Amino acid sequence: MTREQSTDVGGHAANTRVAIVGGGPAGSLLALALAQRGYGVDLYERRSDPRGQIADRGKSINLGLSKRGMQALQMVGLLDRVLRRAVTMRGRIIHAMDGTGRFQPYGKDSAEVLHSVDRNELNCTLLEEAGRYPSVKLHFEHQLVRVDKQSRELEFNVSGQNIKVRPQWVIAADGAFSTMRRELQHGERADYHQEFHEWGYMELTLDAAAGGTSKVELRALHVWPRRHCMIVSHPNLSGSHTLTLLLPFHGEDSFATMRTPAEIETLFTKYFPDLIPLLPDLVEQCMKHSPAGMVSTRTAPWAFADWAVLVGDACHAVYPFYGQGMNAAFEDCSVLVRELNDCKGDRETAFRRYELARRAHTDVLCDLTKAACVELRQKVRSPWFLARKRLDLAIHRLLPQAWTPLYTMVAHTTIPYAEALARSRRQERILLCSSVVLALLTVGASLFYALGR
Amino acid sequence: MTREQSTDVGGHAANTRVAIVGGGPAGSLLALALAQRGYGVDLYERRSDPRGQIADRGKSINLGLSKRGMQALQMVGLLDRVLRRAVTMRGRIIHAMDGTGRFQPYGKDSAEVLHSVDRNELNCTLLEEAGRYPSVKLHFEHQLVRVDKQSRELEFNVSGQNIKVRPQWVIAADGAFSTMRRELQHGERADYHQEFHEWGYMELTLDAAAGGTSKVELRALHVWPRRHCMIVSHPNLSGSHTLTLLLPFHGEDSFATMRTPAEIETLFTKYFPDLIPLLPDLVEQCMKHSPAGMVSTRTAPWAFADWAVLVGDACHAVYPFYGQGMNAAFEDCSVLVRELNDCKGDRETAFRRYELARRAHTDVLCDLTKAACVELRQKVRSPWFLARKRLDLAIHRLLPQAWTPLYTMVAHTTIPYAEALARSRRQERILLCSSVVLALLTVGASLFYALGR
Repeated sequence: MTREQSTDVGGHAANTRVAIVGGGPAGSLLALALAQRGYGVDLYERRSDPRGQIADRGKSINLGLSKRGMQALQMVGLLDRVLRRAVTMRGRIIHAMDGTGRFQPYGKDSAEVLHSVDRNELNCTLLEEAGRYPSVKLHFEHQLVRVDKQSRELEFNVSGQNIKVRPQWVIAADGAFSTMRRELQHGERADYHQEFHEWGYMELTLDAAAGGTSKVELRALHVWPRRHCMIVSHPNLSGSHTLTLLLPFHGEDSFATMRTPAEIETLFTKYFPDLIPLLPDLVEQCMKHSPAGMVSTRTAPWAFADWAVLVGDACHAVYPFYGQGMNAAFEDCSVLVRELNDCKGDRETAFRRYELARRAHTDVLCDLTKAACVELRQKVRSPWFLARKRLDLAIHRLLPQAWTPLYTMVAHTTIPYAEALARSRRQERILLCSSVVLALLTVGASLFYALGR
Repeated sequence: MTREQSTDVGGHAANTRVAIVGGGPAGSLLALALAQRGYGVDLYERRSDPRGQIADRGKSINLGLSKRGMQALQMVGLLDRVLRRAVTMRGRIIHAMDGTGRFQPYGKDSAEVLHSVDRNELNCTLLEEAGRYPSVKLHFEHQLVRVDKQSRELEFNVSGQNIKVRPQWVIAADGAFSTMRRELQHGERADYHQEFHEWGYMELTLDAAAGGTSKVELRALHVWPRRHCMIVSHPNLSGSHTLTLLLPFHGEDSFATMRTPAEIETLFTKYFPDLIPLLPDLVEQCMKHSPAGMVSTRTAPWAFADWAVLVGDACHAVYPFYGQGMNAAFEDCSVLVRELNDCKGDRETAFRRYELARRAHTDVLCDLTKAACVELRQKVRSPWFLARKRLDLAIHRLLPQAWTPLYTMVAHTTIPYAEALARSRRQERILLCSSVVLALLTVGASLFYALGR
């Protein structure tokens, strides 16, 4: 069946009705933000309504909310509510092979922290708040199958039947494998880059001890970095932690060689022995889940005339190593809303300005994230790296305005990513020059002292 | 209608029947090579049979055949026949703004030359020869629409009707926007990179003078390099030349500002004044054609179990600046045929070895091609670059075994691309060190001479 939904073809709130494809965090945040600004919104989501459902274990369900994401939540007035349900993480605890843990603070003070939030709960909160607006219609179980750019129609599969809608304009927030992106770019001279990490990930739960206390320090991100693999954990309000096991898909010590109970135990004994007593149901959990892939994407253009625009993972998916995926997506939302507001109805200009303001920076984030993977795997355990990090933080404490470590700029400020990188490189050059000058002065002083004797 | 073609589902030549998707040069070369080796072949091509048709003007119809492509034609016994219909190009003639031309030889001798061939004629020759084999079936106007990886079925649209075939195995030779690639990689952890050049291209014909003589030197590639745009021309046997105008799509002096007769004349007067008297129908030609885009792609994996494998543009499209697109595709064919032969029916191993032998090298070709664009635009006009090129060729003439310029290795040998690049970098280091030593010796000798006086 092919029919037209009367609400979407002209008529109601004729000049301001938008279709948002994808009801994840970015899509639902935009639905809310635009509704607050008087837009009519039709939000189409492939999955069923997540509200009232329990999220799948084994899928990515925790996020480290940082400054950029917080700013977007502030914009829609939900920051306090979300933070009340978050666990503050003051830093990382790095777990060595010998079972010892070392704390690395995220920043210089209590403002420079991350907040562990439940992705599903955050998503539900945003949908709930958006749904309160009469001008917002939430359409679940609508799978986009085709886009006709000529007639500007979207075709959805709904319970096996195809329906067409003709929205005035569209925001694509349908994730890394965005159907909107694919359909919009079909036949266009569009750039697209998609790369999978050789590692997969699997989420495991480290349950709270009896009484709801955490088995490890609650208010921190925990990392078990190994050269070959890694575990990262985010705390939950309940006292449990969500562990993410990152491991190669293939080869020696990989998901491919972790299929039987014995193999699982062998691998954990080899790499994460201190976790075995904490995870009594380790084997059961590992047997139940399949590893998922991690994709990094970049694309251009993000906008199509005055009709469609991409946000979040639909235009820039990143590996999870910098904890910036959702934060960057939320920042897209803030910038898009600001540009729409500034351009007062001239959507084509708003889209162009939005892409100009964001794309160069999310491309840099893509590179930073790849570098962060190497850092997390190896450098967190190197004494030189730790000393360098401490020096960076110490100068930051002394000169908070003039000197900011790269991680601080990415996580605790809204300095655009490419500017953060450029500033960090300048700082590195200053540090290098200072070291050389210091070394020369030391040699000079020694000589002076030696000759003076 | 959905039916199964009886010839394709089991039965005939059961163990050796292959479907080739795409009947361009690579697909038709493979059809011929495999038929010669006893395979049954079904070749499916989206377009109609090109034999007996006249190719579209304005589409890329000339190729510079070099060593790698020649080797593949040798394999199928067609090299001599193709060369008889080719124009030998001994080097490039670089046309400066003042109308002067400067000849740069392609290599040290008459073996290091390129051959300008008509793409359509080459394609027809290959199809004709493949079609002589009773074991080869050519299916034109078959557009692949879907691939079912589970049931290993291909679905084609034929005159508006869908038919399914179930080949034993498949070679995807369906070009840069390969439907096979897209369908095979759907849902897989596959890498894919696609980038469009900011320039478009348009082909124009420089007709022969009365009597079939060429208006410019016939046996050379002609280049009109400008910082902002470029024309490259390939000679034809008839004495005409096919010019390729490369120009930005947008911005100042672009295809977007070359739409009226006056604009066309203004642009040619500004950048290619010496061509205006040679092209009396310039405006007419430009008005008739639309510019086409140039895409560069990379992907992985190339092989899917023992069932499907990608070749040519379907796995690595490159910009045309190195003249290696079809040569690299033909080299894929040689390597694939060799591995299939060596692995004696173990297709999975043959595919894996083929990908291992080729992918790293075509990835390097992709980078070399991007660098070649910069070189063609700018460096061909720099005296330093020309001097460096002459020195390179001079050493190559002195020590042909030990020293080979990069271009020579790419165009006139079958040294794998990545090895060619590594060797060229070593040569550059040697050249740099030698220059330093030479400079020091000169200074030393001058001092010796000065002190001795």
